[in-house]
Amino acid sequence: MAEVLVPPGVSPADFAAALAAFREAVGPDWVLTSEPDRASYLDPFAIGPRDEHAASAAVAPASTDELAAVLAAANRYKIPLWPVSMGKNFAYGTAAPVLKGAVVLDLKRMNRVIEINETLGYAVVEPGVSFFDFKEELDRRGSKFWMSGPAHSWGSVIGNALEHGVGYTPYGIHAETICGMEVMLADGTLVRTGFGAIEGSREWQAFKLPFGPVWDGMFTQSNFAVVTKMGLWLMPEPAEMAGVTIDVPGKGDLAKLVDTLRPLKLDETINTAYTIANGMRQITGGARRQEIWQEGGAISLERIGEVLAQRGKGWWNVIFNLFEHTAGGMDLRVEKIRRHFAAEMPEAKISVVRWKRGEPQQPWMRQDVSLAPFAIVDWRGSPGGHSDFGPVVAAVGERVNAVYELIERRFLEYGLDPWVGMFGIGGRALIFVADMLYVQDDAAMTAACKALFRQLCKDVEAMGIGVYRSHIEFMDDAEAIHGWNGHALPKLNDSLKAMLDPNGILAPGKQGIGGRQP
Amino acid sequence: MAEVLVPPGVSPADFAAALAAFREAVGPDWVLTSEPDRASYLDPFAIGPRDEHAASAAVAPASTDELAAVLAAANRYKIPLWPVSMGKNFAYGTAAPVLKGAVVLDLKRMNRVIEINETLGYAVVEPGVSFFDFKEELDRRGSKFWMSGPAHSWGSVIGNALEHGVGYTPYGIHAETICGMEVMLADGTLVRTGFGAIEGSREWQAFKLPFGPVWDGMFTQSNFAVVTKMGLWLMPEPAEMAGVTIDVPGKGDLAKLVDTLRPLKLDETINTAYTIANGMRQITGGARRQEIWQEGGAISLERIGEVLAQRGKGWWNVIFNLFEHTAGGMDLRVEKIRRHFAAEMPEAKISVVRWKRGEPQQPWMRQDVSLAPFAIVDWRGSPGGHSDFGPVVAAVGERVNAVYELIERRFLEYGLDPWVGMFGIGGRALIFVADMLYVQDDAAMTAACKALFRQLCKDVEAMGIGVYRSHIEFMDDAEAIHGWNGHALPKLNDSLKAMLDPNGILAPGKQGIGGRQP
Repeated sequence: MAEVLVPPGVSPADFAAALAAFREAVGPDWVLTSEPDRASYLDPFAIGPRDEHAASAAVAPASTDELAAVLAAANRYKIPLWPVSMGKNFAYGTAAPVLKGAVVLDLKRMNRVIEINETLGYAVVEPGVSFFDFKEELDRRGSKFWMSGPAHSWGSVIGNALEHGVGYTPYGIHAETICGMEVMLADGTLVRTGFGAIEGSREWQAFKLPFGPVWDGMFTQSNFAVVTKMGLWLMPEPAEMAGVTIDVPGKGDLAKLVDTLRPLKLDETINTAYTIANGMRQITGGARRQEIWQEGGAISLERIGEVLAQRGKGWWNVIFNLFEHTAGGMDLRVEKIRRHFAAEMPEAKISVVRWKRGEPQQPWMRQDVSLAPFAIVDWRGSPGGHSDFGPVVAAVGERVNAVYELIERRFLEYGLDPWVGMFGIGGRALIFVADMLYVQDDAAMTAACKALFRQLCKDVEAMGIGVYRSHIEFMDDAEAIHGWNGHALPKLNDSLKAMLDPNGILAPGKQGIGGRQP
Repeated sequence: MAEVLVPPGVSPADFAAALAAFREAVGPDWVLTSEPDRASYLDPFAIGPRDEHAASAAVAPASTDELAAVLAAANRYKIPLWPVSMGKNFAYGTAAPVLKGAVVLDLKRMNRVIEINETLGYAVVEPGVSFFDFKEELDRRGSKFWMSGPAHSWGSVIGNALEHGVGYTPYGIHAETICGMEVMLADGTLVRTGFGAIEGSREWQAFKLPFGPVWDGMFTQSNFAVVTKMGLWLMPEPAEMAGVTIDVPGKGDLAKLVDTLRPLKLDETINTAYTIANGMRQITGGARRQEIWQEGGAISLERIGEVLAQRGKGWWNVIFNLFEHTAGGMDLRVEKIRRHFAAEMPEAKISVVRWKRGEPQQPWMRQDVSLAPFAIVDWRGSPGGHSDFGPVVAAVGERVNAVYELIERRFLEYGLDPWVGMFGIGGRALIFVADMLYVQDDAAMTAACKALFRQLCKDVEAMGIGVYRSHIEFMDDAEAIHGWNGHALPKLNDSLKAMLDPNGILAPGKQGIGGRQP
């Protein structure tokens, strides 16, 4: 039998006592210590050996009362917990903790849709509500409001918003749809943010700016508390939609493309995130790698160009959807985009599909729940994995192009196919998703991925650029970029962490916060 | 000679030493202790004796280095400071501190417009930049971006955003236009939030969601740090604008009006805040009170109705502007609003004025700096003052109406004219501005205002409702409403305050935070 994994610094006796206290708190069925149970919390896309981030156990409370009892026991025995909503944070660690031996605090049993408000357009949900569940509930009620989902729908609605996930609608910056939370501090205190701090509030989800400071953002991408309820704004059903695809032939045209899209995004003519896919990203659809590339190392840019040419595609492909609430407005919006591109980039080919309220929904509208993006995982072979390098870059053509060229060069240098998407988001920035696709048990390849990510962190730090999120493997690296004035911001985070969670029981090391404490 | 005012708990000797240290820090000219200087920081609209919130001195650093030296001295001698940007927070205390005897930390000398970025549409400013200054700078540069200003333009751009001030454009929730700050903690540490924490960042103002927690909101309506720089997003010039006025006759129609406006606001057909003025608010324009009302106490509802009838006005008046970025779109937008009202409230009279890019700007567009709203101050007599009760209410007709009726009844009961505006903001809520207009040296009237405000706090607390900001006089009352789970949120604020500012030097009592510490 394998040695029992215990949390670092915790004696086997204390760990056993903690597990007993957890069982007392949540019932024996919901403290999971068996090998198969523990394995279910491993990262299926681990970058290297999965057990480097193995959990020692998992505990799954069904209520805030049970949660409080779990936290009390964790404080007593100094047990590091790793809270997950659904544990589906694919590509960023899934359910696995930064700290090997931490106990996963699995919130999937807290799964109520507490409210869907059809008057004001908001919902209140618990962490265990997935996008599948949520869509089903909206449909069941015949809601006239729409959900903004991410690329795949297994995950938690709360978890995605907390991790700054994005979707493909005007409400697609999911963290910005948050309005009011209930959180439990490490000491077991429940706090409601915003107007939820008023007994009997009906404004908790109605306005984001309460009397006093605004805490909601503090509980995103952090480990300051466990989020137990969240309010989220929902989008009214549009009158019209359009799906726009723009094909841009020349590899050298990225800067011009970004500069051309910018004013349309800034004034919200384009009122969702746009995605720019590079050539590599375009040739993977429906293809198997060995049909394209038989040599070692990364697919060459030349070869990518050949395949694009065979398929009649340009190097850059832009897609976005438009939402319009005033019937008839879509004609003007599409025409404006066509005119603008005709003037600025006449070589771009634009195609448009349309929808009007009352018509059946189409796949391009991305209103259905989906698992489609997983198709790419085994691109390099099985068992495949993927994770991404996600720098955030100002929507300025020459800067975006410089980061793109850097990433492409480094990917090729480290033997990885340069699979890159860029998401134009919020009008003023692009988030890169430079996807490292690897074979998990190819030690050389996973080592190359780790080295590549760390090299890229150094590269972009020199340009003044950071990332929007990261795999658990790289959280310290990503945090380390924030060095202004002697790392003043990371230190501030650590100070708040030490105050709120002196025993470091909540997700030590998440986003690099509180990870180096005893 | 009057006794020298010293901060509470500080000996005259320590105070003298602190002032000497302040002079060392900022130069002797910028430590202000004379009677006229101190008087300039009194609240010109004080609700009762102005010296109840008198400052003992003021100190005005010109740079972050000077500011750090001031904070060091304040920590050494335990001097409470009251940071103000321009000190023009009219109706909420202006420059006067909550705590009598605090030293005003006047940031008006830190007044650089550090950047106006014409590519990405943002600005970086210091606290001492007023809306007047900022508009002038935008005009000087021929910027193609527009400012979103508040009702009057004396104040600080930063100060207004920090206090959750609002304007009349699609960027009118000014706190939501904040993207990145530089703040100085009480211990003198400078911190840059968001991507500003990366050396050489060009993304500081490009994206609000950094790697890790989002601090910006924490430095609004709080006293956790001194904001020394702020990034703010600017609005692209629209292609078209419209100014819409809607007259609704019946006093009983408020609920229906709010419910009729809600879907148009929720889907951003109306893409700015709308203002609903009640009858009282409409009859003050261009009038003198004694012409309307010669009896004692508040103007009766009957009399308000008579004056409205004489002027041919309904009880409710709605105004808002529409912004459109796609030429031609305004026709559709206006037509949609007209059709919707024709179906839901045919008795409403709608009038519309229009503007297109290239035409001269008009006053209704509110793009000019202004002091106009001050005209109302002496309504009850001179020296007049005003402050408001500002509950935030979900955009649900029956609830808005219940709060309105409550406020009107209480105002009349306390002998004050029920001057009420409601601002439909963010789609899901209205902010009330129920303006108490009083004569400052009428002790009975100011006592009635105080009693009224506190009574209304109790009234709305029973409905689960809080306020969006308050005069310094009422900050503890406004905070006390947040009682959920044993005042968990106010206690969390106090804990963070104690950690960041153990000597309580920064704005003790602001928003009720840290006010009860030694």
